[in-house]
This record gives sequence, structure tokens and C-alpha cells, in this order.
Amino acid sequence: MIDTISNHRSIRTYKSNPIEEKVLENILTAGTRASTTGNMQVYSMVVTKDESLREKLWEVHFKQDMVKQAPVTITFCADFNRFNKWCKQRKAEPGYDNYLSFFTAAIDALLVAQNVAIAAEDEGLGICYLGTTTYMADTIIEILSLPEAVVPITTLVIGYPDENPNLTDRLPLEAVVHNEVYKDYSSEDINRFYADKEALQETIDLLRENKKETLAQIFTDNRYTKKDNMFFSDKFLDAIRKQGFMNE
Amino acid sequence: MIDTISNHRSIRTYKSNPIEEKVLENILTAGTRASTTGNMQVYSMVVTKDESLREKLWEVHFKQDMVKQAPVTITFCADFNRFNKWCKQRKAEPGYDNYLSFFTAAIDALLVAQNVAIAAEDEGLGICYLGTTTYMADTIIEILSLPEAVVPITTLVIGYPDENPNLTDRLPLEAVVHNEVYKDYSSEDINRFYADKEALQETIDLLRENKKETLAQIFTDNRYTKKDNMFFSDKFLDAIRKQGFMNE
Repeated sequence: MIDTISNHRSIRTYKSNPIEEKVLENILTAGTRASTTGNMQVYSMVVTKDESLREKLWEVHFKQDMVKQAPVTITFCADFNRFNKWCKQRKAEPGYDNYLSFFTAAIDALLVAQNVAIAAEDEGLGICYLGTTTYMADTIIEILSLPEAVVPITTLVIGYPDENPNLTDRLPLEAVVHNEVYKDYSSEDINRFYADKEALQETIDLLRENKKETLAQIFTDNRYTKKDNMFFSDKFLDAIRKQGFMNE
Repeated sequence: MIDTISNHRSIRTYKSNPIEEKVLENILTAGTRASTTGNMQVYSMVVTKDESLREKLWEVHFKQDMVKQAPVTITFCADFNRFNKWCKQRKAEPGYDNYLSFFTAAIDALLVAQNVAIAAEDEGLGICYLGTTTYMADTIIEILSLPEAVVPITTLVIGYPDENPNLTDRLPLEAVVHNEVYKDYSSEDINRFYADKEALQETIDLLRENKKETLAQIFTDNRYTKKDNMFFSDKFLDAIRKQGFMNE
């Protein structure tokens, strides 16, 4: 089991084979076994296989080819809609139109997503998370007809891998683990923890291709820029508000 | 593997045995194999074993006994501090003081947490998530000395189980899965999906104890009230702002 976790790599090239219904059902069921706040299950999984819908999702997710290739896209949503409807049908007044409830539901959705990811990999399938889900929440809400109190949080594409990439590098364990309380980083710590990553051939190639002096600059100037982050922050907060989670 | 996932139950009573260092290291390493946005690893795990610190955390987490009983508490944090420091030491200007970056880091932290939870259970350990982490983020920030750009997202207590509870009920799979796009719920759907839960002996006992007419009322009036949700929403948003993630 820890083997499945240890061998995880994101898959970005897929075969066109569909996923057997029984396998998909097992994976989704594994999702529902995740811990959920107060056993409220305040999440939903939208399983999209239809080609024209996946083409729309592909466009939204910055046209990453794997969205078209993989036979299944699952959008994991924070969802208080079902719970609110139940409350109202049972003479109970729901008070879940606020940020804490949104975040609680987002946690639920993410724990489910990771169960689904691991269960899928354990079945020999490949997966990739789409971080573009929060960037484009407003458009995803339209495409998938998400009602009030439902916000997309993350997306998995799932299918049979058509590549076998190497394991991705990680920082040393001590870089991300703190004993007892948080110990802030000295500049020597930072140099030490990032040394291996900076020495990778992959990094050296990236610097040459992008004509940058440091790997960090590729993140700040190319991949995750302040300008984009600010733009998508406003857009995502608007979507959360529009879906009714910012009763102020 | 799917067995480990399928057999998950939250453990609320623990033996006092410590967790062997090697086992803990394996579990934490499993955490780091989770998908992480752009391989930035914008999270930290604070592993607390010290008894007096755990007593402080117990107080914060609404005095749930398991926090004192279990030998290890892990607080999973959204963390851009390490990444920001690296950028600044590498002539790169980080632009991560915004809500999108906070949420990206929170996703990272939650996928790590679920890997840790599953890996721990696979080692025969028990776990329980503490949803009180977001409620009490401000106090946890103080106790664990979390610097700017670090926000606690969730907490796991981990240890050897001293109970063997039954599997918790879940809604039918079709209640939480939508095919292709979201299909909103009719009142018949709601009745059907919640019927089994409402018929449980556990539910009937709860209604009697709490002198309530419906299970939903126990959620809205006792467990997750609008008043508490509003109060903790403001507190959590303040903590996110105070840690520098709401550059407006």
C-alpha cells in the first residue's frame, strides 16, 4: 500500500481505453471512505466522460492535452447544496452560507480526491491533478451546472498510462517536517534543502531554455506570477461569494 | 491497498505506546509523495510529541481526550514561507501573498495529510482528523510559532488504537456522484438518499437524547450552528489575512 503511495507519478499521456464500470465504481467508493467532517459528506464528485463536455473542460483547463486523452475527468466539489436541501426538508435551518463552511467542505472534497487518486493508482490507472480548477472555477460552475453552495476545488483526470515517467524529486524530509514547533529557516537551511533540486540536469536545462539565472525566477517570472495570482485570487473569491459562501 | 482505505474508521481512544521512529519516518515520507502544485511543496508538517505542548493543543482542540492520549499530533500547514525565502535568496521576487496562493498551499497540505493518514493506517496505526484546526488557527499559530505565510489547515492525531469501532455509515454512492454534469436533487432524491441514515438505531437514540424531531436539527441546532460558523469564519479569515495571504 505504501508502495502505491511511494510510486505515485502524475501521468500526462494516456491510452484511449475506457475505464471498466466496476473499477470506476470501486475507486469512487474508496473516495467515500475518507474522513468527512461530522459525517456530513459535504462534497460531490462530477464524473465526466462525454467527449464534447471533456473538450469544454480541456479548454478551461488551459488546453492540457491529457484532459482530452484520459477517458474520465472527475471534478471534486465542496458541496453544501445536498445537505442544505436535507435540512430544509427536515424542519432545520441550515447556517452554512459562510467561509468556514466553504472551507470545511473543501477539506472534505480534497480528502475524497486523494483517496480516489490512490485507489485509481492501485488499480493500475494513472492520474493527474488539475490545479487550474480554482483558477477557472467560475467557468467550470457553468459547464457542469453547479448550483448555489457548490464550488469546484480540484480535478483528476484518470486513465491508463501511456508513459512511464521517473519519480519526481522532492525536498529532503527534514525540509518539510518540524519537530514539536515550527523552526524557521536560516539562509544556510535554504541553501542546503534546495541544493539537490538546483543541481538536477532538468534544472540546468530549464535555466538554459528560459534564459534565467535561477530556478526560483522560473517560478516567479514564468510559472506562477504575481500578476496571475492576483487576477485568479479575485476571480476565485468572487466564485466562492457568488455560490453563497460569503454571507457578510 | 483499497482494503486499507475501505477499512478506515476514525480512532478516538489510543494506547499510550509511542510510535517507532522508523515507522513515523515512513509515514511522513509517504506524505511527501502526494501530488503538489508545480512540485513547490508549499506545506509543512509540524510533528508534536512533547506532553506539555500536546496539552496546549488538547485545550485548543476543544479538549478532545484523544489529543492527550495519542502519542503524536501532526499539524498540516499551508506554507509559502520556505518557498518565499528561497525565492528571495535567489534574486526572484515572490508574488504569493494572495488568496489563490493560500488555497493552493492548503490543497497541497491536505493531499499530504491524506497520504499520511492512509500510510499510518496501513502500518496498523489509528488516526483522527481534528476539524477544530481551522476554528482555532490563530491560537495554533501562537502555540506552534508559525511565521508569516504559514496557516494550519488540518491536524491528525496518530497512535495505536485502543478501540475497534464499526465502520461509519455513508450515503449511497449515487448521492455524491453526478454523471457528466451536476444533477440537482429533487425532494424525493433527498428522502431516498437520507433514508438509511435516518433509520439507524444510532439516529433514533440521538433524537431521544437531544429531544429533537429530526437528525438535521441536531446538526443545525447543536453541532454546527450558524452562530458558531459565522464567528469562526471571521476568526479564520483574520488568521489568513494576518499571515499575509490577503494582499488587497
